[in-house]
Amino acid sequence: MSTSPFPARLEKFVTATTGRNMTKAAYVAVTCGVAMMVLLTVEPAYSALHAGVDALLWACLAYFVFEWVIRLRYAARTGHRSAYLFSFRGIVDAISALAVPVALATGSNPKSSWLLGMFWVLKVVPGIRGLRQLRRVLVQESGPLLSVLVIFLVVLFMASIAEFYLEHDVQPMAFGSVPAALWWAVATLTTTGYGDVVPITPLGRIIAAGVMICGLGVFGLWTGILATGFAAETRRDNFLRTWEYVSKVPFFASLGSAAIADVTQMLRTIDLPARTTIIRQGQSGDCMYFIASGEVEVDLPGKKVALGEGAFFGEMALLGNSLRSANITTTRVSQLLVLDLVDFRLLMARHPDIAETIDAEAKRRVLENK
Amino acid sequence: MSTSPFPARLEKFVTATTGRNMTKAAYVAVTCGVAMMVLLTVEPAYSALHAGVDALLWACLAYFVFEWVIRLRYAARTGHRSAYLFSFRGIVDAISALAVPVALATGSNPKSSWLLGMFWVLKVVPGIRGLRQLRRVLVQESGPLLSVLVIFLVVLFMASIAEFYLEHDVQPMAFGSVPAALWWAVATLTTTGYGDVVPITPLGRIIAAGVMICGLGVFGLWTGILATGFAAETRRDNFLRTWEYVSKVPFFASLGSAAIADVTQMLRTIDLPARTTIIRQGQSGDCMYFIASGEVEVDLPGKKVALGEGAFFGEMALLGNSLRSANITTTRVSQLLVLDLVDFRLLMARHPDIAETIDAEAKRRVLENK
Amino acid sequence: MSTSPFPARLEKFVTATTGRNMTKAAYVAVTCGVAMMVLLTVEPAYSALHAGVDALLWACLAYFVFEWVIRLRYAARTGHRSAYLFSFRGIVDAISALAVPVALATGSNPKSSWLLGMFWVLKVVPGIRGLRQLRRVLVQESGPLLSVLVIFLVVLFMASIAEFYLEHDVQPMAFGSVPAALWWAVATLTTTGYGDVVPITPLGRIIAAGVMICGLGVFGLWTGILATGFAAETRRDNFLRTWEYVSKVPFFASLGSAAIADVTQMLRTIDLPARTTIIRQGQSGDCMYFIASGEVEVDLPGKKVALGEGAFFGEMALLGNSLRSANITTTRVSQLLVLDLVDFRLLMARHPDIAETIDAEAKRRVLENK
Amino acid sequence: MSTSPFPARLEKFVTATTGRNMTKAAYVAVTCGVAMMVLLTVEPAYSALHAGVDALLWACLAYFVFEWVIRLRYAARTGHRSAYLFSFRGIVDAISALAVPVALATGSNPKSSWLLGMFWVLKVVPGIRGLRQLRRVLVQESGPLLSVLVIFLVVLFMASIAEFYLEHDVQPMAFGSVPAALWWAVATLTTTGYGDVVPITPLGRIIAAGVMICGLGVFGLWTGILATGFAAETRRDNFLRTWEYVSKVPFFASLGSAAIADVTQMLRTIDLPARTTIIRQGQSGDCMYFIASGEVEVDLPGKKVALGEGAFFGEMALLGNSLRSANITTTRVSQLLVLDLVDFRLLMARHPDIAETIDAEAKRRVLENK
Repeated sequence: MSTSPFPARLEKFVTATTGRNMTKAAYVAVTCGVAMMVLLTVEPAYSALHAGVDALLWACLAYFVFEWVIRLRYAARTGHRSAYLFSFRGIVDAISALAVPVALATGSNPKSSWLLGMFWVLKVVPGIRGLRQLRRVLVQESGPLLSVLVIFLVVLFMASIAEFYLEHDVQPMAFGSVPAALWWAVATLTTTGYGDVVPITPLGRIIAAGVMICGLGVFGLWTGILATGFAAETRRDNFLRTWEYVSKVPFFASLGSAAIADVTQMLRTIDLPARTTIIRQGQSGDCMYFIASGEVEVDLPGKKVALGEGAFFGEMALLGNSLRSANITTTRVSQLLVLDLVDFRLLMARHPDIAETIDAEAKRRVLENK
Repeated sequence: MSTSPFPARLEKFVTATTGRNMTKAAYVAVTCGVAMMVLLTVEPAYSALHAGVDALLWACLAYFVFEWVIRLRYAARTGHRSAYLFSFRGIVDAISALAVPVALATGSNPKSSWLLGMFWVLKVVPGIRGLRQLRRVLVQESGPLLSVLVIFLVVLFMASIAEFYLEHDVQPMAFGSVPAALWWAVATLTTTGYGDVVPITPLGRIIAAGVMICGLGVFGLWTGILATGFAAETRRDNFLRTWEYVSKVPFFASLGSAAIADVTQMLRTIDLPARTTIIRQGQSGDCMYFIASGEVEVDLPGKKVALGEGAFFGEMALLGNSLRSANITTTRVSQLLVLDLVDFRLLMARHPDIAETIDAEAKRRVLENK
Repeated sequence: MSTSPFPARLEKFVTATTGRNMTKAAYVAVTCGVAMMVLLTVEPAYSALHAGVDALLWACLAYFVFEWVIRLRYAARTGHRSAYLFSFRGIVDAISALAVPVALATGSNPKSSWLLGMFWVLKVVPGIRGLRQLRRVLVQESGPLLSVLVIFLVVLFMASIAEFYLEHDVQPMAFGSVPAALWWAVATLTTTGYGDVVPITPLGRIIAAGVMICGLGVFGLWTGILATGFAAETRRDNFLRTWEYVSKVPFFASLGSAAIADVTQMLRTIDLPARTTIIRQGQSGDCMYFIASGEVEVDLPGKKVALGEGAFFGEMALLGNSLRSANITTTRVSQLLVLDLVDFRLLMARHPDIAETIDAEAKRRVLENK
Repeated sequence: MSTSPFPARLEKFVTATTGRNMTKAAYVAVTCGVAMMVLLTVEPAYSALHAGVDALLWACLAYFVFEWVIRLRYAARTGHRSAYLFSFRGIVDAISALAVPVALATGSNPKSSWLLGMFWVLKVVPGIRGLRQLRRVLVQESGPLLSVLVIFLVVLFMASIAEFYLEHDVQPMAFGSVPAALWWAVATLTTTGYGDVVPITPLGRIIAAGVMICGLGVFGLWTGILATGFAAETRRDNFLRTWEYVSKVPFFASLGSAAIADVTQMLRTIDLPARTTIIRQGQSGDCMYFIASGEVEVDLPGKKVALGEGAFFGEMALLGNSLRSANITTTRVSQLLVLDLVDFRLLMARHPDIAETIDAEAKRRVLENK
């Protein structure tokens, strides 16, 4: 093991960021850094508090430098130095650590230099849940999205030239050049409509009206494409996640693979922390649960029953009795599969054997608890 | 039974609000209160009418206090006091009853105090039909929606810092601080585009154009996610509602469970008040109806035939005769299942026995009415 | 037959409006009336041309009065007077005929009176193709759409009260009353953003930012709901239309009803006027056609072959030869069914017998034309 | 062969534009021309650089004239002169070549004449990938889209007349005529909201609020329609493309046609240039690949294995081992079919024979590489 100038615990604290990608300390540093950067620019406030603001900014910067150094060392030790350096996270970490000091060192205006801390906020990006899903949608639909973008740009450019030609004599300030007209066109085509530059000739206004309607069309196409892509991606994502959980439940494992694929499409997954009440006595329910991992406790009158991996509960709600008869709470972090009333009925129709097993177990439980 | 200072009928009037959640009196009070609050701020009008406006405001307030007290007592009597107090409805009721008096008691400006009556309008929220459905969509899709929101905020913040840096020398008033730049950024990224703050440097405008296009993208993603979630939720909701109705119709009950699940996906439900004409003679029709509950009256020449639960009508439209041959009217509140021409044909293909039964009944009716 | 003061041909001309709902004369009258109404308000132009403009307006009005009288008489003669009078079309016809004369008779300003001709434009509404489809979507989804509208109104009202409270001291003109604040709120929540009224207090701006983001959310929900409803309605509409055409093609009639329902989902309908070229020699093709009604002419070298109802053509494109080998033109108004390459392949898989029949016929044709 | 004043290579260079429709030279010319046109209007810059800008503009024009002449000659030689002349591309080529010279020849202002070069940008339109798909969606959904457009226009016109009536006395400049009011209406209904023209009467504002809400509705309908059409079109397009690739893989060719249609719906296509790394050792994978055409190289320890058309790789990821065990790189331009984990599982369920073949091959490979 290599020697480190930092205590091992500190080092572990920074590198142990698999999954959520950021430690709590990093979240605090980003939030605090961003707040201080905002304060830096609010004049009477900054003059009054400048010692504190500066101190916090330096502290945040120090944390990010420290984090980067530790991560670099860790990556080097595990042999992924270049992988880390050129990953999105590595680049953001490097910019976060270096941008401000380099700017200060080259003698820029200190206030402006600190504004480079805006890249700190990019540290939260890899931690966004569902970002992978969004990126897949954008990649899969990149073809049509780019087509729409090109159409957008062609309309933008032609409208700008036309408006420049029609308006630049009447409004030499606002439409004095094509770049100025482009500014008007982009604000109009996106339906933002600042109103700082507005055509006033009749023909210019007719073209502007056309541009606005094109804006609606571009918007509609864009949304239509994204909606289509998103629907496909959601279906895929749910299937993958559910499949993983289904494979942990022995109840389903005994089914043939055709039935498993079918059942997987009917279930939803849900992740719960410990000590969460899933079912509350007296509430109405419309779904049942299978435990993929973890444990729940059923709070029956006079006794507590623990249900472990592979067990199911809440099936009464699907068999006619819609009021929950007991509190059920997780005792550990648990992964559950949810079967909705709707899907239970489809399941009953397509796989009567599964439904019968659930039915039999439910009857056994009723008798037992009488 | 506890003694009550209010007459029993009054009390029942306020608490009998299951289902629709608000009594008619509450609707009147909310509408009237809101109207008066608006009038309160319209200057020449208020000075002229201030006695009446004040009286109505006090009356509304009195009603809401009374409603809250009665509901609290009722909840206490049925043992759900804390459940009521901490439910959304309980909190809104409490704020509606207490906010204005507390503000007046603490010596605030009377006009401003009455404006706290704006929380009265929240009383309509639990009564919104379809709200549960919307909430389920938002919960199910919360992951991707939050991702988009984080992306929105990251773009917002980075654009603000950049514009502050580029514009604050040129426009010290409009872009004098990051919060001011954030105001510009939010109006731009949502494509609202007030135009009160507009970048004027070339680079600032290029970044602004990027922000506007990002705005379209965020919008598109948002809509795509919601559309996907909504489609899934609608399917689920329809299935559940239709299933409930289908189970009341003996005609379907004789089918196997696979067929029931299949048929349920083809039907739609419809709820009608009494004395509503469903079918008008001479109109063209493209669907038939099954009665889940209630009763309808067929106005045949010379006689009136009543059809009760489980009966069906309008089947001629699906068997070639598209003009309705008689008026059909509900005699009571009725729940109907609608089978469209499209789905009838799919049904014919998949469950020929059902189609034959309908066909046979239709022929019998034609003979009978000849 | 009743006696009529108008020649029979004129009368028939106005009443023969089934289907498209408006005669060509009515289209001309509406277009001309609208153009004149616009010209009426454009000052230097109207003064110059007022004789012509007035004459045309009177002519349009005369036409609409005449049309209304004829239609009323016709409806009375066929016994649908009240049905016509209270239908949308009847009401629009009545307003179109009466609004301007009544306004002129009651001594209003002539210019303003003529503006009531704006209702003439409503005459095109019943003729909009696809309107029935749009209305069905709105009716089917009215529940969730209304929920979103109520949420919209609640946000609108609460934001207005809050902004009034925060801004009315600072901007007594812009936020002097709740109605004024409502004006700001509606322009903001719909992301229109005029910028004539803009909050300037920090808290007011934070609330405004929230309102804008809510605006995006409302928009997204709205679109999501409509997209969902539209997808379902389109599927239904296509199925109905295609089914009608399929039933006219003997080729499909021999199939079982399950297969017909299946095939119907794969076909698309297309309506063509006479003398339209469907297939052009040398173009690449990816679909084949079935003739539901009408006739086409195949322009083979040296001879012309007519194909009538029930025949099919263009099948080569699906069997490997993607370049069209002859011009094919309609000789009459024709209704065709289109089978796409994609669906032909699915058809081949699911109904090999149909595919074989098409294949055999194609081979026979090739041999014949050699 | 006809004689040509240009060298054969040059000629081939311009005409060899099948597929992507534009040569690289044309892209350069369009980009350069557009940039120069923009520069032409930016005043201090143009005066400084006018010699260079003019020269580049003339060069671009010369290229487009040259391109048009060559293409015309080529089309004439291959007998498609009129087809080319009246195709979109032919018209754009003609306008690009002729508009500027004609304008200059007729003595227009030189600067304005050069602005006609804006049509040059239309040359990129036929090259937009996915444009055909977009056009198909617009054609298929033209019915409902036109309906929405007519509704849009009716609302636009009626709102304009109403606002003209209500506002023209108070704001004679802004609402002095119906065309002026139309300008306001179009900016409002598209939610652009410039704010240059804003109603100020109470009734005018209420109508304006209605128009804004209608704007949201129109938008929602538009998007809903496009989303629906796009989903259908995407499915169709993917199927066609995948089918073409599937037919090249012997592995699938042995299946029955029903199975092929089914498998085709599960695969995705991907086109890769030479020397692209598809799989990187150590990464986690969730899909396998089939080679439709081209070749890949597996970089096993100590040896390199080439896989040609019809082979598959990456199957380990689907059989439990999610970390890729070797780098795999294309050696030529390759067309691959991708089978996702999700779809592999559905495939396993529906076509166990395919899954077994993949499984057996995977085991063989593991043994071989031990």
